[in-house]
Amino acid sequence: MNTANPREFQPHSDARVLEATKPSSDYIDIPESEPLHLDCRQLLAPFRIAYKTYGTLNAAKSNAILVCHALTGDQYVASEHPVTRKPGWWETMVGPGKPIDTDRFFVICPNILGGCMGSTGPASPNPKTGKPWGLDFPVITIGDMVDAQVRLIDHLGIDQLFCVTGGSMGGMQVLQWASRYPERVFSAVPVATAAWHSSQNIAFHEVGRQAVMADPDWCEGRYHELGKTPRNGLAVARMAAHITYLSEEALHRKFGRSLQDLAAKSFSFNADFQVESYLRHQGSTFVDRFDANSYLYITRAMDYFDLAAEHGDVLANAFRGTRTRFCVVSFTSDWLYPTRESREIVHALNAVAANVSFVEIESDKGHDAFLLDEPELFATIRGFLNAAAERRGLKPAQDGR
Amino acid sequence: MNTANPREFQPHSDARVLEATKPSSDYIDIPESEPLHLDCRQLLAPFRIAYKTYGTLNAAKSNAILVCHALTGDQYVASEHPVTRKPGWWETMVGPGKPIDTDRFFVICPNILGGCMGSTGPASPNPKTGKPWGLDFPVITIGDMVDAQVRLIDHLGIDQLFCVTGGSMGGMQVLQWASRYPERVFSAVPVATAAWHSSQNIAFHEVGRQAVMADPDWCEGRYHELGKTPRNGLAVARMAAHITYLSEEALHRKFGRSLQDLAAKSFSFNADFQVESYLRHQGSTFVDRFDANSYLYITRAMDYFDLAAEHGDVLANAFRGTRTRFCVVSFTSDWLYPTRESREIVHALNAVAANVSFVEIESDKGHDAFLLDEPELFATIRGFLNAAAERRGLKPAQDGR
Repeated sequence: MNTANPREFQPHSDARVLEATKPSSDYIDIPESEPLHLDCRQLLAPFRIAYKTYGTLNAAKSNAILVCHALTGDQYVASEHPVTRKPGWWETMVGPGKPIDTDRFFVICPNILGGCMGSTGPASPNPKTGKPWGLDFPVITIGDMVDAQVRLIDHLGIDQLFCVTGGSMGGMQVLQWASRYPERVFSAVPVATAAWHSSQNIAFHEVGRQAVMADPDWCEGRYHELGKTPRNGLAVARMAAHITYLSEEALHRKFGRSLQDLAAKSFSFNADFQVESYLRHQGSTFVDRFDANSYLYITRAMDYFDLAAEHGDVLANAFRGTRTRFCVVSFTSDWLYPTRESREIVHALNAVAANVSFVEIESDKGHDAFLLDEPELFATIRGFLNAAAERRGLKPAQDGR
Repeated sequence: MNTANPREFQPHSDARVLEATKPSSDYIDIPESEPLHLDCRQLLAPFRIAYKTYGTLNAAKSNAILVCHALTGDQYVASEHPVTRKPGWWETMVGPGKPIDTDRFFVICPNILGGCMGSTGPASPNPKTGKPWGLDFPVITIGDMVDAQVRLIDHLGIDQLFCVTGGSMGGMQVLQWASRYPERVFSAVPVATAAWHSSQNIAFHEVGRQAVMADPDWCEGRYHELGKTPRNGLAVARMAAHITYLSEEALHRKFGRSLQDLAAKSFSFNADFQVESYLRHQGSTFVDRFDANSYLYITRAMDYFDLAAEHGDVLANAFRGTRTRFCVVSFTSDWLYPTRESREIVHALNAVAANVSFVEIESDKGHDAFLLDEPELFATIRGFLNAAAERRGLKPAQDGR
């Protein structure tokens, strides 16, 4: 089944829009006969999951690591992004000889359902109309994203993933995988995440959505058809979110009150301060690579995430009987997903006598630390994966690391 | 000089616009012959300062307390707001028998320069054109706001204020008063504030400004003339800012993940969660009472505030030789102006052997605590003012409080 050739609609030909409909990466198309049963009780079919793999799947298919990306991530975890031409978003972590060693492990990174890099999302053509789904796309959940990923793992013929990992919203998917498909997850590494989205985080997301929706070029979500892009609204949303990814200390260290290429204040509304210029840049570059409706849908999925609520308000019930080995990681200066939220996961796992280790990493880089050069994070994940691989009976790393 | 009757421009007649040009409160008009020398090196004249007073000035004119308002505050500190019909913004603190006791003290609360409740600001008519200033209004500073207030205090014939107090941006004005006009400030109570605006706070303000400026109804600041209002942009700015006024704990306690009048998630972009509904309400009601350009100018003034930079990067130099008695107050859960920023003020005051007391109040209400029912705040300010009044030789409160 090919949904990449819409019947009527011709998207304007910028690279981002093209990736949403004709991804450069691999993809699978799930036919109409095998619909996804969404949490909102709608069926979704056909649909596509775009993905990248790195390394080689061993004969026993026992060395696969699923990397789940965060809100604005994609399948290009360890290779160049086809739109921005920037390196993969987790190249510090994933690659030959890296903590997630592609000389040893087979790494799979799918673009999430609802995304805009080739997996079916609001920018994809609605098979009923041939036009982009827009707001007719069903509201999805983290559980739906995971269910869609299961189809990919089935397609690859993998019964049990050696590990599922990811940071932030990626970590939510990790928890959902371990809870919903415990037999298919040998080990799980949720990083800088939470088992439910806090009130403050919902609030920040709502500001972002309102910023997008306030942009007249959003056109009630029909901007693709109308040849428009809600640039300003999406940029404002990104700017607000970006502040939450950094710690106050990191902002202070990076920028302080330094002026941008100026000897003195301009007494105007120009970007006098470096931090203003930085944020404006973050906003405008984001718009070049990301779809505004995807931003609405994915933030909504995160807001809806509440693993305890799915299990009678007792988080431990989400993991009862689990044999998965967990490594939970948080960062001291992360105020978006603070350590106490990781501790709640650990307490729930302890309550069901799960095999869990927990590391809180000292860092002043805020939530973004999980994407940055954090030697203790690398050592933690390398060590945990080595030990788990031994348990799983995988060959040791070639140099004994 | 009367600048309230613009030559050409007729504002559309909603209450907010009317207050900007014809305030219900008292006001003074400073004539063209007595311009304000702004920090941006422009001259501003004529200009108007609207203000309210409460209580009675004694014969010695020694019992005056100047209350400086915060970003979105106004002169209606202890009386009904003429647009919203809500009670004054600090009625818990100011009034008969209250900590700032209007039976005893003469309370003066001016609308700041750049505001929109009658003092000259970007919504006021530009005397050169008769149209609203818009972005032709000069970029002002906290220092300019204070200099404008000095004219009011001169007009009232008061040599020395018994006390200058205020929270948040009001606290910045307190510090600026004490630094620039030490002989005119007997005592100073800066609450929940800082001597310079942090990188993170500049970042949040920049998001708000970008949200306003992204609204096509902002019309490069000329919306008044064109009969428009950048409602959506200003509402988004307010929503983002509002999150920073509350602590994560306060949001959690108030809202948690509770749904708004719903048994289950709607799987839509409606305001499912109470916190979303609350934020949307905050955004839309704000737009009814506040001017978007004023929001731009006042946030800019806050960003520019840096009392140390004005004094060779040594904050203590701002207070050298001071005889003012200080009481510095912070709140434990205020992450916008955290306690460490109050400590920096206290350290600077200690370095010049100033008379300073410092109280960090335990509260989980975040920055907003200074406006809320915080008995320790009331006790602190009542106690400090009583002691200072005794030093100043003022009569004790009638009931000996």
